[in-house]
Amino acid sequence: MEVVRSRADKAILIPAGTFRMGTEDADRNPMDAESPIREVGVGAFRVDPTCVTNAEFATFVNETGYVTEAEEFGWSYVFGALLEPELRRASQKPPGTPWWRAVHGARWDAPEGPGSSVADRADHPVVHVSLRDAEAFASWCGMRLPREAEWEKAARGGLDQARYAWGDELTPNGEHRCNIWQGAFPVRNTLEDGCLGTAPVRTFPPHGFGLYEVAGNVWEWCSDTWDAGHAPSMSGDVRVIRGGSYLCHDSYCNRYRVAARHASAVEDASGNKGFRLAADA
Amino acid sequence: MEVVRSRADKAILIPAGTFRMGTEDADRNPMDAESPIREVGVGAFRVDPTCVTNAEFATFVNETGYVTEAEEFGWSYVFGALLEPELRRASQKPPGTPWWRAVHGARWDAPEGPGSSVADRADHPVVHVSLRDAEAFASWCGMRLPREAEWEKAARGGLDQARYAWGDELTPNGEHRCNIWQGAFPVRNTLEDGCLGTAPVRTFPPHGFGLYEVAGNVWEWCSDTWDAGHAPSMSGDVRVIRGGSYLCHDSYCNRYRVAARHASAVEDASGNKGFRLAADA
Ligand SMILES: [Ca+2]
Ligand SMILES: [Ca+2]
Repeated sequence: MEVVRSRADKAILIPAGTFRMGTEDADRNPMDAESPIREVGVGAFRVDPTCVTNAEFATFVNETGYVTEAEEFGWSYVFGALLEPELRRASQKPPGTPWWRAVHGARWDAPEGPGSSVADRADHPVVHVSLRDAEAFASWCGMRLPREAEWEKAARGGLDQARYAWGDELTPNGEHRCNIWQGAFPVRNTLEDGCLGTAPVRTFPPHGFGLYEVAGNVWEWCSDTWDAGHAPSMSGDVRVIRGGSYLCHDSYCNRYRVAARHASAVEDASGNKGFRLAADA
Repeated sequence: MEVVRSRADKAILIPAGTFRMGTEDADRNPMDAESPIREVGVGAFRVDPTCVTNAEFATFVNETGYVTEAEEFGWSYVFGALLEPELRRASQKPPGTPWWRAVHGARWDAPEGPGSSVADRADHPVVHVSLRDAEAFASWCGMRLPREAEWEKAARGGLDQARYAWGDELTPNGEHRCNIWQGAFPVRNTLEDGCLGTAPVRTFPPHGFGLYEVAGNVWEWCSDTWDAGHAPSMSGDVRVIRGGSYLCHDSYCNRYRVAARHASAVEDASGNKGFRLAADA
């Protein structure tokens, strides 16, 4: 338990100073307000090297009895290819994104619904967590969600205006540095990075500041309000999420670029969204 | 004391929902990233009707022994015209803004330096407070600083894309609605609104949601990192401030417009910067 509670002291110290936030990359999504490039000053803060894992979230739930929003709702979104065919056929597709399924009983400790478990995924990032769930965990261990500028500064790892967290090439020397989608999304994943769904934390090499998997694997909640306009369907409290997930592919969602950003309604949990904690220095 | 501690419950509830943030006003400052206009979703939250006052800050200091950053530094910036001529002449002008004076001993309870006091300003907003000072007060009473989107949503008072918090005219029917500068800045203030320095809270009529003095009087700290680029002199942790102050004038700083925004380094206190508190709903 103490391991989790003292995590702020063990988090990575990012010193105060400015960095160049944003991008003018021609491949950026103009609707996401990734541009312009601007100098942003950020005070010293601490950030975890990895996302919160299933094992850590289990400790939290065991100690506090916390109930996630997905559990209250009774369902959550799961990527269809992760489901058994029968459950996949029986679950509803949301309009416009037919690779998702609304799965009754999907929750953090049953990520693909009834019968699934995280027993063999203790070191994977916890998913199916809403903003409220992430903030509850953060409060419990004396930390907080990162602000977006903190997230991007940490993710850039000291590099100035690189395209990815580790440099300008997606696969330097042919090595995979993140868990995204290879092949034709969403019909065929060639699994060149070895993962269809989540990967364990610390699967890929850390970058500059020692952070793992800031690109791909799971989206990460930030505390900032989304400021770039959004679909009317997201009409409540909409926040910034960063980093992309195992579903990102350059044909569809190239948001594993380090300047990329996206929006999520606070209550939306899903099987590809987790969180990484920060703390004041 | 209990009055201060239960203030979150008495703060104004702003219901969840979207609003149109930002402006395309031709008079905006393009460096400040006030544009584009975008739909922003904000969850329900609470916000104080007024800024924190000197009386409230005095209670906090008396109970906790808190020492502000300006006290630690030993000086703060004061608007020159508020000073006795001798002190004004003896105090240093910062480059580029010769109406300010760096005054030794200026602090929240001696806003014009040694010999000044807040005895007759109990209901004025506290000034000479840094971000750390504001956050310390907020923690003490179980509240927090507003995020910028919350601030602007609250300040707009339910009006869509009005220029000011109360509508499109600065002085409807010739009535002053905020404490800014009249006359030729910075040499002559004709005091048509009745105030050279700070005004007591609740001097001007409240607007839509019941907030007072969101325009003019004193700048208000928000928790957001300033994201629009800034002078290299502000190289540390730079945050958003909103609302403008008694020094705003359309010839120089028309940031009493409701979409206007500005930057401040977190350690910068001055005689025209205060704060208003928010809380989760
Ligand atoms: Ca993959
Ligand atoms: Ca005035």
